[in-house]
Amino acid sequence: MSFEFDHATHATPLGNGVYETPVEDRWDINGNANGGYLLALVGNTMRAESGRAHPVSISMHYLSPAPEGPATTTCEVVKAGKRLSTVVASMSRGGRDVVRSIGTFGDVDASIGAQSNTLVMPDMVAFEDCPKRPVDQMLKPGLSSRLDTRIHPDDVGFATNEPAGIARVRGYFAFNDGRPVDTLSLLLAADAFPPVTFNLFGMKGWVPTIELTVHVRGVPVPGPILCEFTSTLTQGGYWEEDGVMWDSAGNVVAMSRQLALSPLSTD
Amino acid sequence: MSFEFDHATHATPLGNGVYETPVEDRWDINGNANGGYLLALVGNTMRAESGRAHPVSISMHYLSPAPEGPATTTCEVVKAGKRLSTVVASMSRGGRDVVRSIGTFGDVDASIGAQSNTLVMPDMVAFEDCPKRPVDQMLKPGLSSRLDTRIHPDDVGFATNEPAGIARVRGYFAFNDGRPVDTLSLLLAADAFPPVTFNLFGMKGWVPTIELTVHVRGVPVPGPILCEFTSTLTQGGYWEEDGVMWDSAGNVVAMSRQLALSPLSTD
Repeated sequence: MSFEFDHATHATPLGNGVYETPVEDRWDINGNANGGYLLALVGNTMRAESGRAHPVSISMHYLSPAPEGPATTTCEVVKAGKRLSTVVASMSRGGRDVVRSIGTFGDVDASIGAQSNTLVMPDMVAFEDCPKRPVDQMLKPGLSSRLDTRIHPDDVGFATNEPAGIARVRGYFAFNDGRPVDTLSLLLAADAFPPVTFNLFGMKGWVPTIELTVHVRGVPVPGPILCEFTSTLTQGGYWEEDGVMWDSAGNVVAMSRQLALSPLSTD
Repeated sequence: MSFEFDHATHATPLGNGVYETPVEDRWDINGNANGGYLLALVGNTMRAESGRAHPVSISMHYLSPAPEGPATTTCEVVKAGKRLSTVVASMSRGGRDVVRSIGTFGDVDASIGAQSNTLVMPDMVAFEDCPKRPVDQMLKPGLSSRLDTRIHPDDVGFATNEPAGIARVRGYFAFNDGRPVDTLSLLLAADAFPPVTFNLFGMKGWVPTIELTVHVRGVPVPGPILCEFTSTLTQGGYWEEDGVMWDSAGNVVAMSRQLALSPLSTD
């Protein structure tokens, strides 16, 4: 059986760390590939080059928009350690950089080592009682057509121009075709929800990601991933978004942070 | 007048994005250069290559320890945009990578754009009433000899084997020689305090940084920088540390996050 996400992140190795990594249709928002999808697509080649099982910490800077079409990713292993390996990568198209990434890969087993957790799981309603992510009917079907993204009923106000006034989106991440969520697809989940500032300022134009970092902290058990995204600071034309992801057993499996551009006007 | 930090981050351009970036003595912990110092040293060359005024978002992965001595940093500008430029860099020594970094540079003016801030400044005592960072008299003078790092009296328990049980360190960052703190030195501040897990688990061996990301959110006014570092999750042999930094006018000037190794044993 073949799942959509596996097809969309498939990379053909050309040798010397170079991969064909075509950007697939319908993982986009309004024509440009989603940042989490690009992180998973490029991260998949980096993981392959590392020879390790999981991304541990991976950062990506977004340089130019990526509509569907052919692309090439070049990886370089810059450290192959006993416990961790670090890889840098660039995805390019027509000689132009699309993204640059650096990541460290290794084993992830949340059950080992010293344990301390003060993260509070958000008050959530059941998966079935959360509406699907609202889709803009004016746009071509994109990322939302691949995912079964559910959003807390209190956090969908942005879609009807009734933002809750809190920079927060709580929801569930799952694939439409039932693909299990593994550590690679957590990289997609980290950027698969509407920008939380939509619930603060309303939908005032697009808010492109400058940089996204994901720490994978556990291997998820089967089931949808509970996600909470928040933002604490918008100023200077920038805002940050923090994500925490829990698996259906209640274990934290990832933390994310991104810095994005906000519209420079104050209204 | 020449300040220590400027001397220590001085880079000699050799052309084509290559710089001599010697690692200076006494910016170390027990012989290995501090991660924030390396971020500032390499970040300074990246900023120069970018032609922009400030780091906006910069990430570094730490590959091998860096004792004092000669080192070379090679930068590549991978995007020169209208508003932002992105640069990748590697510092190496004897053909071996020490760190790899990726950063985006541009203007920082916290006063412009939409504004929202829910970050709460920690309860602090005055700079003068905070003890200096405790120094291990068994070690050679290092980073602490350059800085006037003050720590909240409630957060110094780790040094006397009386950890408070909370993964938190609040304090002030300033230079011993009175150098003003600018956006470059905020990169140092982000890693200049004792690991917060020392106040949770005690000082159980070193906790090397895998990856550090700093978002510069404002240009500090003169005066010491109030810093709060916390951690929410230790598991699987990893822990994260989040930092927020305020200038003396009460404006947030930086946010940081790192992922570090924790001792794998549970005791």
